[in-house]
Amino acid sequence: MKELRQITVIGMGLLGASITSKVMRSMPGITAVGFAHRASTRRKAKKLGAAHIVTGDIKKSLQEADLVILSTPISKFEQYLAEIAKFASNGCIVTDVGSTKTLPVKSAQKLLPKGIFYVGSHPIAGSEQRGVEFSRDDLFDSAVCILTLTVGTNKEAAETVKKFWQAMGCIVKVMSPLEHDRIFGQISHVPHITAASLVNASDSKIMAHAGKGFLDTSRIASGPANIWSDIFLTNIDNCVKGIDKIVSELLKLRKAIKGGDRKEIERLLDAARNKRNKMIAEKIRKKELIS
Amino acid sequence: MKELRQITVIGMGLLGASITSKVMRSMPGITAVGFAHRASTRRKAKKLGAAHIVTGDIKKSLQEADLVILSTPISKFEQYLAEIAKFASNGCIVTDVGSTKTLPVKSAQKLLPKGIFYVGSHPIAGSEQRGVEFSRDDLFDSAVCILTLTVGTNKEAAETVKKFWQAMGCIVKVMSPLEHDRIFGQISHVPHITAASLVNASDSKIMAHAGKGFLDTSRIASGPANIWSDIFLTNIDNCVKGIDKIVSELLKLRKAIKGGDRKEIERLLDAARNKRNKMIAEKIRKKELIS
Repeated sequence: MKELRQITVIGMGLLGASITSKVMRSMPGITAVGFAHRASTRRKAKKLGAAHIVTGDIKKSLQEADLVILSTPISKFEQYLAEIAKFASNGCIVTDVGSTKTLPVKSAQKLLPKGIFYVGSHPIAGSEQRGVEFSRDDLFDSAVCILTLTVGTNKEAAETVKKFWQAMGCIVKVMSPLEHDRIFGQISHVPHITAASLVNASDSKIMAHAGKGFLDTSRIASGPANIWSDIFLTNIDNCVKGIDKIVSELLKLRKAIKGGDRKEIERLLDAARNKRNKMIAEKIRKKELIS
Repeated sequence: MKELRQITVIGMGLLGASITSKVMRSMPGITAVGFAHRASTRRKAKKLGAAHIVTGDIKKSLQEADLVILSTPISKFEQYLAEIAKFASNGCIVTDVGSTKTLPVKSAQKLLPKGIFYVGSHPIAGSEQRGVEFSRDDLFDSAVCILTLTVGTNKEAAETVKKFWQAMGCIVKVMSPLEHDRIFGQISHVPHITAASLVNASDSKIMAHAGKGFLDTSRIASGPANIWSDIFLTNIDNCVKGIDKIVSELLKLRKAIKGGDRKEIERLLDAARNKRNKMIAEKIRKKELIS
C-alpha cells in the first residue's frame, strides 16, 4: 500500500469538502488540499477551515498529490483528468466520487498516462443538499463505499484507495463498473426519476396539504439538477429500462384499480410490502439499519 | 356543542387504540370504550390498558356512546354503520378515520336514521406500522385532521367532532368530501401506488444495496395491503387520473434521457426541485415543518 502525504480533492462541494474535513481530523500528517474553480466556493471553504490548503490553481493542487479525488459533477471529469495527466507526478493515484462508474473508467483509460493509476469509487453518502456549507467531517461514518475494479486496475492502487475509504469511516464493497451502474440505476437513479415525476405530476396548491408520506417519497427530488442529469446521461440504458419497468408496474395497479379487482390490488401491494419488509429485516440483521 | 360522557372506538388498530389511549390521558370524566372483533386484539388492548373498557360485544359498546369513531378498514364501515343504526341511542354522533371520504358519507346517509349524526374525519396520522401494539397516546399531537362537511351535516355535531379532534391534539381543517378525495388521491394514494410499483419493479438481490434514498422513497409501500386496497377502491377515478399523470411525467424524462437531451432533463429536474423546495419553505413558514 502506498504511503500518502498529500490528498487533493478536486471540487469542494458537499462531498469534496467533507472528505478534506475528515482527512484533517482523522489522518494526522497528511496534507488536505482542496481545489475549487469558483472564488466564492474557495472563500466559503477557507472560512470553514475545510482543508489545509484551498486553491484555485489546478497545477499547484496536483503537483505534490499522492491521491487525487475527483468530486466535481461527472461531466467535468474529462476536463480534470486531462489536467491530472499534465500536472500530477508519476505514481499518483486517482479516484472519484461519481455516482456512475462505467464512463469514468473509460475516460481515465483514455486520458491518464501509464504511471498514474485510476480506481473508481462511489461513496454512498450525501443528501439532497449541496455545497461546501453543508459539508461535515462525519458524512462518511458507516457509509458504504463501492470500489469498482476492472482487469486493468492496479492492485496496489486499489488497496490504497480501499484503505483510504476505510480511514474515512466507510464500509468498502467491490464490484465491476457495469454491475455498479446496473444496481444503482435501479436503487438510486430510477427512484430519483420517479420522485421528480411524482412532484411534476402534482399540483402546487394540492402539495400544500402533503404529509410525511409525500415528503419522504419525494425527498430526493430536491437534489441538484445538473448532478443528476450527469448521472442519467452516463447511465442511459439502465435508466430507460428501469423507467419501463416502473411504468409497467404502475399500469398493472391502474388496471386492477380501474377494474375494481381487490384481489389483484392486494396481491400487488402485498408483494411490494413483503419484498420491502424482507429487505429491511435483512438490513437490520446485517446492522446496516437500526430496528 | 354536545357534552360527551362515553366515546366508543370501533376497531382497535394503531389509530383506534391511539384514540382511546389519548382520551384516557387527556379527557378525564369520559369513558373510553374500544370494540375489537378479534379476541387476540382485545387481549393485547387489555394488556396495554388502551381503553377503560375493551369489548367484543358491539351492542354493549354502542348503547351508551355519545360519540362513535369508526377505525376499521373502510370496507367494514357499512357493516358497523348498520350496527350503529340498530344499537346507538338517539343523538349519538358518528365519525370515522377513513382515508377517503366520499364513500363513507354516502354509506352514512344510506344507513343511519335521522337522530344519529355523521361527520367525516380524516386525521393525518399513523405510519406504515399497524396494530394495537404500535398505538401511542401522542400519535395525534400536532397532526392535521380534515373534517369533511356536506350540506346535510348537522352543525352541532360538526362542532362537537371538531372540538374532539382539537382535544386529541389535532389541527382541524375543513373541506368537502370530493375535494378531500381529489387532494389525497394526489398527495397520498398515488404516492403509495408509486412506492409499491417502485419496489415491485426492483430486483430483491439488487434492493439489498439500497441506501437512504430508496428506503425513503419506498417507505409507504410497507403499509397494510387491505387498508390501501380499500382506499384505492373508494377513490378509483382520482387514482387512475393520478397514475396517468405520473406515467406521462416518467415518459417525458425517459424521452429526454434516451435522446441525451441534457437541457430537457435539467428543465424537468429543476421544475421538480423548485416546486418541492417551495412547498418545504411554505411548510416551514407555516410552522408545519421545522427547518
